[in-house]
Amino acid sequence: MINVGIAGASGYTGVELVKLISNHPKAKLCAVTSNSYKGKSLTDIFPSMRGFENLICEDLDIKSLSKKIDVIFLALPHKVSMQHVPTMLGNNIRVVDLSADYRFTDVAAYESAYQTHTSKDLLKQSVYGLSELYRDRIKTSNLVGNPGCYPTSILLPLLPLLKEGLIQPAGIISDSKSGVSGAGRSLSLSAHFCEANESFNPYKIGNHRHTPEINEILSLHSQQPVSITFVPHLLPLTRGMMSTIYARVTDTATQDKIRKTYDTYYGDEPFVRLLNKGMYPAISHVKGTNCCDIGIHFDETSRQLIMVSAIDNLLKGAAGQAVQNMNIMFGLDDETGLNRVQGPL
Amino acid sequence: MINVGIAGASGYTGVELVKLISNHPKAKLCAVTSNSYKGKSLTDIFPSMRGFENLICEDLDIKSLSKKIDVIFLALPHKVSMQHVPTMLGNNIRVVDLSADYRFTDVAAYESAYQTHTSKDLLKQSVYGLSELYRDRIKTSNLVGNPGCYPTSILLPLLPLLKEGLIQPAGIISDSKSGVSGAGRSLSLSAHFCEANESFNPYKIGNHRHTPEINEILSLHSQQPVSITFVPHLLPLTRGMMSTIYARVTDTATQDKIRKTYDTYYGDEPFVRLLNKGMYPAISHVKGTNCCDIGIHFDETSRQLIMVSAIDNLLKGAAGQAVQNMNIMFGLDDETGLNRVQGPL
Amino acid sequence: MINVGIAGASGYTGVELVKLISNHPKAKLCAVTSNSYKGKSLTDIFPSMRGFENLICEDLDIKSLSKKIDVIFLALPHKVSMQHVPTMLGNNIRVVDLSADYRFTDVAAYESAYQTHTSKDLLKQSVYGLSELYRDRIKTSNLVGNPGCYPTSILLPLLPLLKEGLIQPAGIISDSKSGVSGAGRSLSLSAHFCEANESFNPYKIGNHRHTPEINEILSLHSQQPVSITFVPHLLPLTRGMMSTIYARVTDTATQDKIRKTYDTYYGDEPFVRLLNKGMYPAISHVKGTNCCDIGIHFDETSRQLIMVSAIDNLLKGAAGQAVQNMNIMFGLDDETGLNRVQGPL
Amino acid sequence: MINVGIAGASGYTGVELVKLISNHPKAKLCAVTSNSYKGKSLTDIFPSMRGFENLICEDLDIKSLSKKIDVIFLALPHKVSMQHVPTMLGNNIRVVDLSADYRFTDVAAYESAYQTHTSKDLLKQSVYGLSELYRDRIKTSNLVGNPGCYPTSILLPLLPLLKEGLIQPAGIISDSKSGVSGAGRSLSLSAHFCEANESFNPYKIGNHRHTPEINEILSLHSQQPVSITFVPHLLPLTRGMMSTIYARVTDTATQDKIRKTYDTYYGDEPFVRLLNKGMYPAISHVKGTNCCDIGIHFDETSRQLIMVSAIDNLLKGAAGQAVQNMNIMFGLDDETGLNRVQGPL
Repeated sequence: MINVGIAGASGYTGVELVKLISNHPKAKLCAVTSNSYKGKSLTDIFPSMRGFENLICEDLDIKSLSKKIDVIFLALPHKVSMQHVPTMLGNNIRVVDLSADYRFTDVAAYESAYQTHTSKDLLKQSVYGLSELYRDRIKTSNLVGNPGCYPTSILLPLLPLLKEGLIQPAGIISDSKSGVSGAGRSLSLSAHFCEANESFNPYKIGNHRHTPEINEILSLHSQQPVSITFVPHLLPLTRGMMSTIYARVTDTATQDKIRKTYDTYYGDEPFVRLLNKGMYPAISHVKGTNCCDIGIHFDETSRQLIMVSAIDNLLKGAAGQAVQNMNIMFGLDDETGLNRVQGPL
Repeated sequence: MINVGIAGASGYTGVELVKLISNHPKAKLCAVTSNSYKGKSLTDIFPSMRGFENLICEDLDIKSLSKKIDVIFLALPHKVSMQHVPTMLGNNIRVVDLSADYRFTDVAAYESAYQTHTSKDLLKQSVYGLSELYRDRIKTSNLVGNPGCYPTSILLPLLPLLKEGLIQPAGIISDSKSGVSGAGRSLSLSAHFCEANESFNPYKIGNHRHTPEINEILSLHSQQPVSITFVPHLLPLTRGMMSTIYARVTDTATQDKIRKTYDTYYGDEPFVRLLNKGMYPAISHVKGTNCCDIGIHFDETSRQLIMVSAIDNLLKGAAGQAVQNMNIMFGLDDETGLNRVQGPL
Repeated sequence: MINVGIAGASGYTGVELVKLISNHPKAKLCAVTSNSYKGKSLTDIFPSMRGFENLICEDLDIKSLSKKIDVIFLALPHKVSMQHVPTMLGNNIRVVDLSADYRFTDVAAYESAYQTHTSKDLLKQSVYGLSELYRDRIKTSNLVGNPGCYPTSILLPLLPLLKEGLIQPAGIISDSKSGVSGAGRSLSLSAHFCEANESFNPYKIGNHRHTPEINEILSLHSQQPVSITFVPHLLPLTRGMMSTIYARVTDTATQDKIRKTYDTYYGDEPFVRLLNKGMYPAISHVKGTNCCDIGIHFDETSRQLIMVSAIDNLLKGAAGQAVQNMNIMFGLDDETGLNRVQGPL
Repeated sequence: MINVGIAGASGYTGVELVKLISNHPKAKLCAVTSNSYKGKSLTDIFPSMRGFENLICEDLDIKSLSKKIDVIFLALPHKVSMQHVPTMLGNNIRVVDLSADYRFTDVAAYESAYQTHTSKDLLKQSVYGLSELYRDRIKTSNLVGNPGCYPTSILLPLLPLLKEGLIQPAGIISDSKSGVSGAGRSLSLSAHFCEANESFNPYKIGNHRHTPEINEILSLHSQQPVSITFVPHLLPLTRGMMSTIYARVTDTATQDKIRKTYDTYYGDEPFVRLLNKGMYPAISHVKGTNCCDIGIHFDETSRQLIMVSAIDNLLKGAAGQAVQNMNIMFGLDDETGLNRVQGPL
């Protein structure tokens, strides 16, 4: 049994972690922390849990935590994570950090998008938690920087084709759409029901903080600087994310090679599902699952490839992938605690 | 042409007033005020208006307003209204107040639900703005206390039957439901998209501030104290309100008499529509209109009457009825500026 | 391991059963049938299941089914169920029927609401599957008539108080609200997105087929004829149901006695949760769970009791309670396969 | 006063036309036809109209219509329109056809996407009803082929830049999203509330019938064959549409030239609104209006231009533009009947 703590349990990502760990057959939820709800029980915050889970939110006291947990999930704001991680590691707590603080290799990229990095040394040791592509390094890691939701939905379809030279690194476009839960549980006019409901809009065109994260990983794997065009939009729904990605293929690419490449990379992966020709993802097909569904359309004439990916932004885009990473870190099958059959509603 | 000002134009009720007055054939929008958006143009706050209306939000300076307007709509918080109304009247500005400050005759009832009343004298002069029932007094009034949304949806079906002795004043129940815009544009967890979406819940059972307002009017018209059971619920939609009301009929009541009574009261009213037997209202039938639809089901055996009413909470429940009242005050037909044909979407 | 079949697996109730049984630790899904999707795999119909469940929908051939299953869930239309059940029982298949065909004791009541009953004899043997109240009889039953969703949400709060004489059997009102999934997956204008979205309306006032079901059970337990006023409404959300129930208490009733009675009946029940004073249910608190949450408000002056209950119409209102009943029939704890911790989204 | 008929008044586009013409200051709604609701009054179909509009749906009898109307809007299925138009014109009824039947110049393009064209001769005479770009020809036309919703949202931002040689005709991508009303009022699983709600998906990638319409118009105006990549998606909302369009600029293009070009084309247009730098459209800003909002982001380094356009699919994308075209045909200002101030909800 893995003893688990969750920091920041009262946000939307935090509570998804609570659900996953509470229901996990090989993990035990031993501690939850919350800044805003200190001293309250989880069921005070989330009445849906009443009768099934009743931990009290405690302070983030690492010494005390270190006595009861093996690993901690940090569902904390950027910047707050890196204030705690060094001490956690020093107390033998393995960390899956869901903030951006340990996702970057390039400090400058992080600092241009976020703020001064106060834990630079650990960037060499931290592993980017895109489970399918970084599994080997995650296995032995003590510190995983769990990917952003948009990057997950974009990197999973792109990386295999870029690595195998089937698409051109230049001119890639991702038109992405996220449900409102992606903005978290804090209050803002754009998350007001009457503003988001029955509407749809792009936001942060040209300056979303997930862009440098995506570009860094793409560049690493294609061995040249890649800079994608990324336009995020806000969907009037609670959970789910879709990226419709446009790329030019290289001369050697064929539909068959593309499908085979995906099969090589993901054929044995439980959570990446390549759809048959003519089939495309829908958010309702992945909601409540840890899956990333990928559908492709290849136009031979224009040599343009359209990749459509869908994830649940709170699962494969956050808490689900974090648990998948914990499974990998502790030698469990990826699917452990994540393989429930899910329906359409 | 009636020269009109709107105080509190940046809230949801305020902006509905802006729309109605801007589109009104006999009124001219001359001034808008906003505390939060002072100095901004309406189109900065509401980009949908760009090219069609472009007033700048100004301070609530009554002297300056009095030079350009005949009437003002106050879409201000309770308590703030009564700080300004005496001066407005003193400056010959007629007032339609959408707060609760001038809805009550009984000061104690107001004070138990809200706060100390600082403009008690005017309560004798102010008229309750339920247009269909108070038209005669509204005509000559300088100060209308525009009804709450729930009270409007409940009083319109109940008053005629109570006044004519067709239902028993005791034991009336209203199970009411409102869209999220009823809570206004300010931020709260319960109005967060992810909390309201795909949910539904009752709130403030036994202590909603509209209860004393409803009871006062019902009591006045039935010449005995009436105390209804009122349970409001929050609907996962933006605009619309429904009240399902249960009452025992008196011995003399028949289906026919009930329908005839409604016909007597509302047969010539453009905005109260009695539905045929077996037909019931839907929020989609009244959304975007100033109508209150009423459907009834009378069970002869149990002598119980079910009245279902639907309104658009922002129109007949607020801004629409306020404009209807302005029309009455200025000798126009009720329908002026409110009689657009509306579709289902 | 219990070997399970599901008839009618392609509807919304059917697919919820597929999820629950697929994820059940003590049951194995051995066969699914579908009239409309015969020969198709579950993942063709429900792509969310791909990689996790892949049975092929077969014909409803009882002989062949009897070789592989111990129990079958019937998510079939009313009337179709009773055409098959006698043969199923004859082939030693235990049955949980989610249609109305075996919910009634009184044939005439069934026939007035539905149609001629063609399996009357079995009505003596079938047990009404309201798990908490009929557990003893369910344990040994071969045929459970699983309750309707509205009846479940209404009977759970009412029965303990009626049986203990704390509320008056006359004049009970249930103002109930259901999500659109309650109407099933078949096509109709009222389930069209653009008609249901942003709307809300009552329907079938005075003639909903769940009324006789509710009345029969209430009458049985209060030993006198009970006839409630029941008004169902359609909510613009996918899953969830709420009933706001109004009753007069008897002279002996006190808030304390009411709470104690609920505690006696449900204190040890995992799936009925009585909320603390001043707390009320929300659909978001029960969505995805098998729980029925109950909040009450007692007005001492008017002697009126308001009970608010919330369930997930597809779980406690259908598939969840059906699985709970299967657990009881096979000697498992009620919670088996139903006790996941659930979050707010 | 223009005497107007509407054929197919019971669909979502039809009823929007009914609203617009009923509320139009210079037009009179004289006749409505409906195949499914023949003999029913509009208020039977759309209770929201009760008391305000009460025409009876009649047969599509052109002789009889010709006595009372000057112009007819055809909200009929493709193929049905062209069966009637020749006779209508022969009877001196001017036609705005909202089907695809008269949108094409190239018969082969129409036939490859739809079916055999049975009214080819009139294609020479019909005018494509993109009001801002074809105003001169619309003025004198008796037959306008009203554009599709997606084409309107895509052509308005693209045409000025293509015509002025500021973007490259090759490699244009439109990632488009439409609300559910775009699929009409007929029943389908994808328009079922529970399937569309809380989901989002692309559809008809590579074979949507609006693609040839878009390509034909783009090609005409850039004097070379243009073939765009067009991916439509289904949004979980009732009305509204957005296209996020990606294009490479030409060597001579600058941000300034782009903005000036838009200003030249649309500066005097009431219904095309270019947003300031850094501002982007939202569906809530155009819902209920006849406007097309356009926001642009120009990345100097990559020389890529992102154009985001938003329309109300039922207004500028259908009924609103149709009325705008009628206004032009009859010498009225474009805004007549279309210039209401609209709010955010």
